[in-house]
Amino acid sequence: MHHIIFTEEDPFAPITYTYEVEEVICRRRTKHQDLIIFKNAYWGRVLALDGVVQLTERDEYFYHEMLAHVPMHAHPLPIDVLIIGGGDGGTLREVLKHDTVERVLVAELDVGVIEASKEFLPTLSAGFSDPRAEIVEMDGVDILARTKNEFDLVIIDSTDPIGPAEYLFSSKCFEYSHSALKAEGMFVAQTESIHFHQEFVRQVQQRLAEVFPIVQLYTVPLATYAGNWWTFSIASKVHDARELRREFQVPVKYYAEDVHAHAFLPQSLYSRLIAKG
Amino acid sequence: MHHIIFTEEDPFAPITYTYEVEEVICRRRTKHQDLIIFKNAYWGRVLALDGVVQLTERDEYFYHEMLAHVPMHAHPLPIDVLIIGGGDGGTLREVLKHDTVERVLVAELDVGVIEASKEFLPTLSAGFSDPRAEIVEMDGVDILARTKNEFDLVIIDSTDPIGPAEYLFSSKCFEYSHSALKAEGMFVAQTESIHFHQEFVRQVQQRLAEVFPIVQLYTVPLATYAGNWWTFSIASKVHDARELRREFQVPVKYYAEDVHAHAFLPQSLYSRLIAKG
Repeated sequence: MHHIIFTEEDPFAPITYTYEVEEVICRRRTKHQDLIIFKNAYWGRVLALDGVVQLTERDEYFYHEMLAHVPMHAHPLPIDVLIIGGGDGGTLREVLKHDTVERVLVAELDVGVIEASKEFLPTLSAGFSDPRAEIVEMDGVDILARTKNEFDLVIIDSTDPIGPAEYLFSSKCFEYSHSALKAEGMFVAQTESIHFHQEFVRQVQQRLAEVFPIVQLYTVPLATYAGNWWTFSIASKVHDARELRREFQVPVKYYAEDVHAHAFLPQSLYSRLIAKG
Repeated sequence: MHHIIFTEEDPFAPITYTYEVEEVICRRRTKHQDLIIFKNAYWGRVLALDGVVQLTERDEYFYHEMLAHVPMHAHPLPIDVLIIGGGDGGTLREVLKHDTVERVLVAELDVGVIEASKEFLPTLSAGFSDPRAEIVEMDGVDILARTKNEFDLVIIDSTDPIGPAEYLFSSKCFEYSHSALKAEGMFVAQTESIHFHQEFVRQVQQRLAEVFPIVQLYTVPLATYAGNWWTFSIASKVHDARELRREFQVPVKYYAEDVHAHAFLPQSLYSRLIAKG
């Protein structure tokens, strides 16, 4: 029996992850990235960009549900949402489950990811045809920089913070986000793993705290992102993100009311791992 | 630059983990297993048995602290402790931090692991020279089978539940453990990952519930065990393991009072992931 394998190329990971490949579904060069979708017997279809796994059909919901539903339930009335990145559609799918939402602007730098997802990842990309979704192929920072008081929620659903995504985690971008948000607005970003990117998580939390009065961190245990103990940095103008301000009634597999509160690190861990340093 | 790599051989893992090897510290055949200790720039020294990583110097404390300190703080007065497996010494080290402890019996089937740890992993193995520690090279099940009302805590610190370790997770072994424990006794076992071994976790929880009146599950996010979202199954004759019954004053890096309570799954996750099925 011969094996075809996909070996991740993640410069930050002190463990290299390798997947068995049953079938290569799609392999192409988009305008900005090398895109591969392959099939694995356990994970289903797997999307990788520039050699780094972005999602698997089997476990993507852990990440997408937690990125979207924690802020969507902590906000009292999310109507206008901006997603930066998120070209696979998973975050959009979750946001659109909330019937308060009237408009979701998806700013994806690489529309080739959206095209591949529409073609090969139907369980993720269905939201792109929703009339409330608006897709623009541009750098999300440019939208933030010229927008004032327009969004209830800004979601950074980016690749790893190197190359094009690095600027999304700068103080400047956080200031733009603050301005782009309405008075009760919230900001959330995927911010890598505590195990492998602890210093990055600290930096983001510190930078956000210079701009927003309330900055918090919550986590989810993932199997397919290097370091696994994945973080989301959430920042808010007025609302504590630990509390649900809306009734929980969206269909989900991982998120729940008790999962929401539980996802925030216990205070002693936050102090020791993130606040110091 | 040439790379020397160590590729894990874990038949249960749908992702294969590979580590860079700076130096091979020790490679030998013990009586029962292939033992390798190598050095990695990020992880420090790494111990693997039969091709599966058992610990790294960098992150072993997550696992060993949580395996030991949750039951050690939930029990009102742990005096006599049995550790089955645990040949690296990490769990013994944590148990010995409690000054209530008068005796720790370590039943390790493969004394070659203890010898290698004493020689090459000094930060783990120091406890073997403690006068309260007693080491026997034998199958822990044989001790359990002939012991009545002797231990306050039984800890299963085993390799993956295939081969020699499989029987440790049988109903018979849980019955023996119940008999070996005193009236307020507790039992804890490492029980693999929710992500990769969900059905195994369910089985163990069900089997334990046929023997013990209180059965619970707690977790820790690990980077170096396949599946990462690691579980510990804890069973008790009388005490709810969520509560601390003793003052927290041991020196630790991860465990804390709030980490103890937080480690138990929220009820909705436990119901959906473990209880059904």
